[in-house]
Amino acid sequence: MQANDPKLKSFIATTPESHFPIQNLPYGIFSTGADPTLRAGIAIGDSVLDLAILADADLLPVPSEIFRSGSLNQFVALGHATWRATRDAVSQLLRDDNPVLRDNRALRANALLPQDHVTLHLPIDIAGYTDFYSSKEHATNVGSMFRDPENALLPNWLHIPIGYNGRASSVVVSGTDLHRPKGQLKLPDADAPIFASSRKLDFELETGFFVGQPNALGEPIDIDVAEQHIFGMVLLNDWSARDLQQWEYVPLGPFNSKSFGTSISPWVVTMEALEPFRVASPAQQPAPLPYLQQHTDNGYDIALEVTLTAAEDKSGLPQTICKTNFKAMYWTMAQQLAHHTVSGCNTKVGDLMGSGTISGSTPDAFGSLLELTKNGQKPLTLADGVQRGFIQDGDEIAMTGWCQGDGYRVGFGSVSGKILPSR
Amino acid sequence: MQANDPKLKSFIATTPESHFPIQNLPYGIFSTGADPTLRAGIAIGDSVLDLAILADADLLPVPSEIFRSGSLNQFVALGHATWRATRDAVSQLLRDDNPVLRDNRALRANALLPQDHVTLHLPIDIAGYTDFYSSKEHATNVGSMFRDPENALLPNWLHIPIGYNGRASSVVVSGTDLHRPKGQLKLPDADAPIFASSRKLDFELETGFFVGQPNALGEPIDIDVAEQHIFGMVLLNDWSARDLQQWEYVPLGPFNSKSFGTSISPWVVTMEALEPFRVASPAQQPAPLPYLQQHTDNGYDIALEVTLTAAEDKSGLPQTICKTNFKAMYWTMAQQLAHHTVSGCNTKVGDLMGSGTISGSTPDAFGSLLELTKNGQKPLTLADGVQRGFIQDGDEIAMTGWCQGDGYRVGFGSVSGKILPSR
Repeated sequence: MQANDPKLKSFIATTPESHFPIQNLPYGIFSTGADPTLRAGIAIGDSVLDLAILADADLLPVPSEIFRSGSLNQFVALGHATWRATRDAVSQLLRDDNPVLRDNRALRANALLPQDHVTLHLPIDIAGYTDFYSSKEHATNVGSMFRDPENALLPNWLHIPIGYNGRASSVVVSGTDLHRPKGQLKLPDADAPIFASSRKLDFELETGFFVGQPNALGEPIDIDVAEQHIFGMVLLNDWSARDLQQWEYVPLGPFNSKSFGTSISPWVVTMEALEPFRVASPAQQPAPLPYLQQHTDNGYDIALEVTLTAAEDKSGLPQTICKTNFKAMYWTMAQQLAHHTVSGCNTKVGDLMGSGTISGSTPDAFGSLLELTKNGQKPLTLADGVQRGFIQDGDEIAMTGWCQGDGYRVGFGSVSGKILPSR
Repeated sequence: MQANDPKLKSFIATTPESHFPIQNLPYGIFSTGADPTLRAGIAIGDSVLDLAILADADLLPVPSEIFRSGSLNQFVALGHATWRATRDAVSQLLRDDNPVLRDNRALRANALLPQDHVTLHLPIDIAGYTDFYSSKEHATNVGSMFRDPENALLPNWLHIPIGYNGRASSVVVSGTDLHRPKGQLKLPDADAPIFASSRKLDFELETGFFVGQPNALGEPIDIDVAEQHIFGMVLLNDWSARDLQQWEYVPLGPFNSKSFGTSISPWVVTMEALEPFRVASPAQQPAPLPYLQQHTDNGYDIALEVTLTAAEDKSGLPQTICKTNFKAMYWTMAQQLAHHTVSGCNTKVGDLMGSGTISGSTPDAFGSLLELTKNGQKPLTLADGVQRGFIQDGDEIAMTGWCQGDGYRVGFGSVSGKILPSR
């Protein structure tokens, strides 16, 4: 059986709602109180499988020091054959009919740790961070609000998977709280900008993918092999200070409004695990230029949800404010990567590429408060009558996502973060 | 005597025009045919001083493995006290009245190599690359051409040291030739873009600085200490495909038009060496917001020149096409760094920050062909009647820069690169 066969069962029981059944096997970096070494693990059910321990026991095709190098980069750099061999080996070890790990009590005690006993870290040392803008619905919503509702999409949008370079240094792992950024903003009718805390702090629901196989400077990646350059995907929250953004972004793009922090989920779901959920992406009209024309289905059916836990809501319960799906994205990851490199730009192992805000076509499927509340003018009403135009201090935003199989899920876990007051 | 005292003399003789007298001592990374190990060196006259060899001989306050780690990053991360102690030690060793190195024939033979016998590499493993837009003359020229000559500066320009995230992976060292990029461009009056080689390939004359002392996420760098975070400076050519840029840059900024390559000079000139050339930067009106207000002179008097060697010019002689000076820059490096981090963005050792195109107020001082030729409409006439609107295949662009002292120069050497035909 293949490692993503729906019929596979592990001796580690999982419910149908679990994000981490044996079909998934996402990679992360963790440490424990007892051992602060950063090491690679795989999520299985409610546990983490320590890959370094398995490698020490000669059960994996990779030396254990690779798994103890502090990030996944060295492992990822070993390439496709190693990714697949490792996934296959772990899948075999976790099967309910394989006694090697199942019946080795000492090894299980060392290698399997409860997820709620470990600290998860940034999985990959991020080489570069690029953020795209690939949801037609999102680009249309933003263009309608800030430019012209009659010509919401800019002339280049249907031809180019528009993207920009983001700030890699401030990408943080889920659970990292961020202070509300300060910066320049210009109030309506004011002559000059002021320096103040952002009053329009927002999230952006995105996914991101990691480059696993680099390309050299001057050697573009052909769209037909672009997906082979991708190691896996995460959830991504592109925190955005809308008031800073509106004042600063002309003519060179967003800068301080984004660079104060970008959050990603800790588990990298591999493209192998996502393969059964491949779907066609939306038809493209006009047809893109040949270097962007796809010959396979490069969309993925990933259900996505966003919750907001309001600071003053005593229940402490997350309220769902967005439900959408990645499959609606106009430009695919393959197109993004082909475009990114077509001028000759090289990529590196560990480059993170964000999808851009993922918005569906209905108002409950918009992937930012900017869109959900029409730039704060139509606040959301949450439980207990709490109203939200933008994020308030103490609010927590969480995003989750999963591929729904027949009786199981391949999930991403979640990416969450709380906004603390400005320093 | 201080290491930048004009009266210092080295036993390695230098002419008054040399970029690398004992007052400079810039750092680089080099290798030789005989020893391909990448190691740190300092330029002195026409020679390179191998710092690893000096450290092996216990003559420097840094272990030699730091100098053999392949880049300057580990050295830079050791901090100010080490930078200064190393500079002082090397300065002492090179003085004409110090026999330690001067009279040790074996050590000299090992540690001093002719510059034209070594290969120079990227000096620093570049963590992130940010490019600013800080010349008022350049922003005015560009705004006049592409937007409105009556309102050439956008409303935010006099308030914000505008910058954007560039692509770090494609920063290359001087001497790396680049292929003309291909990409999307939209011809005037065309309905749709085409995919083609850039027809408007340009250079941008810039300097860059390297962050030597990082700041943590959420902890902005105060302008009064911003320069202490800077290790040193290089020359930078921000190659730009103007036709790709014009089509792609709305609304998120330049992307493929820049990311095919950015060239830097191989020698990092330290802030200590530049200290005697500190000058006041231009008065700023309106006064910037308090977080950008400077209490010291943060400009530097650096003469800059650009040459073009045309492919068909049989003389092979570089023709000077621009002469300008860094001191005219409206926004300073200290302001750039204070602004970059004010929203909480963290920096890393090895971050490269480009100045933006450096243009003076007269037409012969414009730092790009876009400005020198008015977007190609008024080509330059070079030797032998060669005309240039933009860069042609086989053309070489070289930039040089130096601070002029009394009888000596603290120079940057040069950054050069040839444009090869598209692949």
